[in-house]
Amino acid sequence: MKIRAATEADRDAIWNIFHEIVAGGDTYAFDPKMPREEALAYWFRADTHAYVAEVDAESVGEADSFPGTATPSPTVEMNPVVVGTYILRPNQSGGGSHVANAAFMVALDGQGSGVGRKMAEHCLSEARRMGFRAMQFNFVVSTNAPAIHLWEQLGFKIVGTLPGAFDHPEKGYVDVYVMFRSLLP
Amino acid sequence: MKIRAATEADRDAIWNIFHEIVAGGDTYAFDPKMPREEALAYWFRADTHAYVAEVDAESVGEADSFPGTATPSPTVEMNPVVVGTYILRPNQSGGGSHVANAAFMVALDGQGSGVGRKMAEHCLSEARRMGFRAMQFNFVVSTNAPAIHLWEQLGFKIVGTLPGAFDHPEKGYVDVYVMFRSLLP
Repeated sequence: MKIRAATEADRDAIWNIFHEIVAGGDTYAFDPKMPREEALAYWFRADTHAYVAEVDAESVGEADSFPGTATPSPTVEMNPVVVGTYILRPNQSGGGSHVANAAFMVALDGQGSGVGRKMAEHCLSEARRMGFRAMQFNFVVSTNAPAIHLWEQLGFKIVGTLPGAFDHPEKGYVDVYVMFRSLLP
Repeated sequence: MKIRAATEADRDAIWNIFHEIVAGGDTYAFDPKMPREEALAYWFRADTHAYVAEVDAESVGEADSFPGTATPSPTVEMNPVVVGTYILRPNQSGGGSHVANAAFMVALDGQGSGVGRKMAEHCLSEARRMGFRAMQFNFVVSTNAPAIHLWEQLGFKIVGTLPGAFDHPEKGYVDVYVMFRSLLP
């Protein structure tokens, strides 16, 4: 898996992941009908660093055919496919800008394969490299057990509980956690 | 004191208050050099309700003079002066949009005179009227004792502590509180 800075060419891939995650309405406090341009403007905001995780996937294509050659035979190529994306930015401005914030999204058919963990480790490393002193997640829905488990394994602690702050599509009003970890040595 | 919805005509007054508060750099996580248009765009954001508090203040003017009349004599008029402003909006979108967020600013020479409390009471009433179920402050600097005291008197509780999340211009890294209160009957 390769994690790299996102470019304009990744907009379609990012939107596909963003849309399928947000449409579920059970993990992020975004409008499930948030339009594409608004979502991409948020992901590529001026103060935000966006990344993608990609894996090599087989794709079956056709060899170039030239006039006069025989029928082309199929070839198998390895093409990178974006399976996850994350953003990193200051959580606040001014006197709060030394604390980073991040958000992660993994394509539904890539979940459970370690993409989230690898992106999170990459993100912590990037945040340290940029000089952030800590990282904060403002809105971790308490029913999102896999995310909470991962953040705790990576050293985050629940530093706040917002009672009933998320209206879960199946479970109704559920608590939300604020999670935080220092990035200092 | 009258509290009313802010209009375009209040932009100068709001900017004057915003600028003197944010320039202090000790209570809000905004860049102290945040430019006027950016500040006003934030205060008048599409999802945001902005209000102002105004008091009557004496101003000495001159009566209109007409050609041929005697020298005009000075008159004392009562003119409304904006002494505070606040905003009210959803703290999150989608499944988090039932929790309100608010921010309050009182002109430095109006502080300690109850403007903040009256705006906060007005804000809680407006939030209930709009159907919000709770109100959350995301970033209350722990050294801002008057604000914390007021929020606790108005029923807010500290539900989270962000360690060293604010770089105070005199005190260095200080904790920040997340405060929350239900608006349900």
